[in-house]
Amino acid sequence: MNNQLEIKGTEIKNDIEQTANFGSVDCAEGRGRTALPGTMSNAQARSYLIEQMTAAGLVVSIDAVGNISGRWSPPSADDDAAPVVAGSHLDSVPEGGIFDGPLGVYAALESVRAINDSELTVTRPIEVVCFTGEEGTRFADGVLGSSVATGKLSVQEALSLSDGDQTLEQALEHVGFKGHGRLDASSWNAWFELHVEQGTRLERAEVPVGIVSSITGTTRCHITFEGESDHSGTTPMEERRDALTAASEFILKLESTTHDIAANESESAVATVGSLSVDPGATNVVPGSVELSVDIRDVDATVIQHIIDTVEQTCDRIEHERNVETTIERGYDIPPQPMTDRLSRRLRTAAEQCGITPISLHSGAGHDTMQVAKVTDVGMIFARSRGGYSHSPLERTDWDDCTIATNVLAAAIAETAGAEPQQ
Amino acid sequence: MNNQLEIKGTEIKNDIEQTANFGSVDCAEGRGRTALPGTMSNAQARSYLIEQMTAAGLVVSIDAVGNISGRWSPPSADDDAAPVVAGSHLDSVPEGGIFDGPLGVYAALESVRAINDSELTVTRPIEVVCFTGEEGTRFADGVLGSSVATGKLSVQEALSLSDGDQTLEQALEHVGFKGHGRLDASSWNAWFELHVEQGTRLERAEVPVGIVSSITGTTRCHITFEGESDHSGTTPMEERRDALTAASEFILKLESTTHDIAANESESAVATVGSLSVDPGATNVVPGSVELSVDIRDVDATVIQHIIDTVEQTCDRIEHERNVETTIERGYDIPPQPMTDRLSRRLRTAAEQCGITPISLHSGAGHDTMQVAKVTDVGMIFARSRGGYSHSPLERTDWDDCTIATNVLAAAIAETAGAEPQQ
Repeated sequence: MNNQLEIKGTEIKNDIEQTANFGSVDCAEGRGRTALPGTMSNAQARSYLIEQMTAAGLVVSIDAVGNISGRWSPPSADDDAAPVVAGSHLDSVPEGGIFDGPLGVYAALESVRAINDSELTVTRPIEVVCFTGEEGTRFADGVLGSSVATGKLSVQEALSLSDGDQTLEQALEHVGFKGHGRLDASSWNAWFELHVEQGTRLERAEVPVGIVSSITGTTRCHITFEGESDHSGTTPMEERRDALTAASEFILKLESTTHDIAANESESAVATVGSLSVDPGATNVVPGSVELSVDIRDVDATVIQHIIDTVEQTCDRIEHERNVETTIERGYDIPPQPMTDRLSRRLRTAAEQCGITPISLHSGAGHDTMQVAKVTDVGMIFARSRGGYSHSPLERTDWDDCTIATNVLAAAIAETAGAEPQQ
Repeated sequence: MNNQLEIKGTEIKNDIEQTANFGSVDCAEGRGRTALPGTMSNAQARSYLIEQMTAAGLVVSIDAVGNISGRWSPPSADDDAAPVVAGSHLDSVPEGGIFDGPLGVYAALESVRAINDSELTVTRPIEVVCFTGEEGTRFADGVLGSSVATGKLSVQEALSLSDGDQTLEQALEHVGFKGHGRLDASSWNAWFELHVEQGTRLERAEVPVGIVSSITGTTRCHITFEGESDHSGTTPMEERRDALTAASEFILKLESTTHDIAANESESAVATVGSLSVDPGATNVVPGSVELSVDIRDVDATVIQHIIDTVEQTCDRIEHERNVETTIERGYDIPPQPMTDRLSRRLRTAAEQCGITPISLHSGAGHDTMQVAKVTDVGMIFARSRGGYSHSPLERTDWDDCTIATNVLAAAIAETAGAEPQQ
């Protein structure tokens, strides 16, 4: 069947490179992309997507939180049938790469273009979706648009989220991407997402495509250490209540605990302190307070809980030993999420039809797919990353791999949408 | 002699409280003050000082880096004689206290007012000085104005220092405090500074005033840890080059080493990491780089060197063990500085005349006095701090202690300026 679909790699490359121009930044490691949700660069990327969708004959709608949907419902399709939907996101982390998100969006669009150009007819409509704010670097901890589309978060709650300066509603209105209604993922027959692996397992296995078995759970906490700010020259070492040395002890304990768990118990376990701020933050003042974020992930929920327990015990111990106060806020808590068997099998078959024997692997990163999985069937594939780089300007997937992975995606979408050779 | 000087505590209190209004901030710990050099709040404090100097009959001049000098040269004085000078600074750390700096400036001004109001005549002019940028939270690592007044830093070098956004010259011009010429401390007969102790030794000894024997040396470094930023969910623990865990290990080693030295070798030794920034600083990105400041102090230069050696060895070890790169920049390096015997003796005599048996103690904080000491004779006294708080809104010195300490200062200034009862 796949032979009837001609994926144009040049189109995908062009779309991704055009998108990379919006929010392009020169970093030490090379050319990166900063496109936080609701910013001008993100809006430019969205406008470009809408142009491409329209040019491909899709009917575009934008919901109240800025989720974009492009619908293709050819004459052969039952317009009332639950659609097959595929896509990803266009926002990025600060100084991120150019593939994370855009590949999934444009692979979905290229799939529709290829099916439209083929001899196949489909019985279900196909939609291409771009979710708002997947990365979690502004307004929320992540998967913002898909949380609304799956009913986990109300439109009103989402719109009132603030980055401290502006609400999501204000940002969307400012860039002209506050639409109407709510994209409803529960009405979909199936959801597919193609994403870069962001790891090195496919590269090591020398396979261009992997089928995702499950997405790791992610728990995030914000922790504060409250000590006492005082003069760095006149406060003897033994009288200090230094919030930063307390935080440093926590960071090392989190690292060593998770290292041990990954080595002995569950190799997918990871924990990260990615952001940390010191108050007042002056060279000659003993830090009075430190705020930091903790990001914990594993495919096994009991392992996540084990690490959380260590976090709590460590904070308790540090409170006693260092005479500081700690508070732990658990802000984001998404359990491990397996993919739907029927769609994983379909992706595997599609890959084999493309001459690939894909490996099965878990996703260490969270994706909108883990939200969508709560309301409908989902399937996810990874394209091989080079060097495992991600959330970095060094992120790279070979253009040939983008094309092959898109071919697998397109074949699975077509099959799920009831593709038959034209009469 | 001191009985001929009537120090008005209400004046000092009023001047300090008025100054506290400029840059006043409400903090968790109470009312603080943020008056970084060259900011509007700092400029308001300076304007208020000039008003008070003028009202007291002092002739005010402002040099090219914003150092303010108010000169009192009564008919009894030889206008060409080297003056006796006293003062301190009006800038603060962010969210600092209201006494650190302003007490020394207004105690000096009140001393001149009291000598002027007394039956004493002096043979030397007396000057009250406010130095620019003592704290080192903007433009430079500290003692900026006194570095220029002592010729350690040229006017041009100082003016071109930038906070990343504005140069000192631009900031001073903006607030109207870029004057002319250069205050020259080498032309002074003597320099006195009254400052809050910022520690608890006077409180424990139940003495309101201490005579400073020496000021600890201070060495500051900026250290960077360069690892690799990558996705927090897809980068296994063992493949990480996390700059923040590397920095945490450094911070704890610095703390434990200095703790041991303070316990066993030199009790005045302290070391602090007061500021730290993480790049890119996102919850879901492994930190790629960390920049931090180190502040090391002791009265013994060999102890400072010992800690610096540990810093270097620790960075080397962490580089190897964690596959990160470190760079150490030594930005600020002031050796321990003893005070001048003749002036310390004079301060002690003045205290005893006030009925106080002062203790002798070192200063753990750096002060403009350590710069001035390189070009002329210096003496320094501490007023008792409550609870040892400093660089914090909790900083407090009883108003009675402010008055007593000012009385000691005024008596020492008068004596040094050749005071005699009027004929």
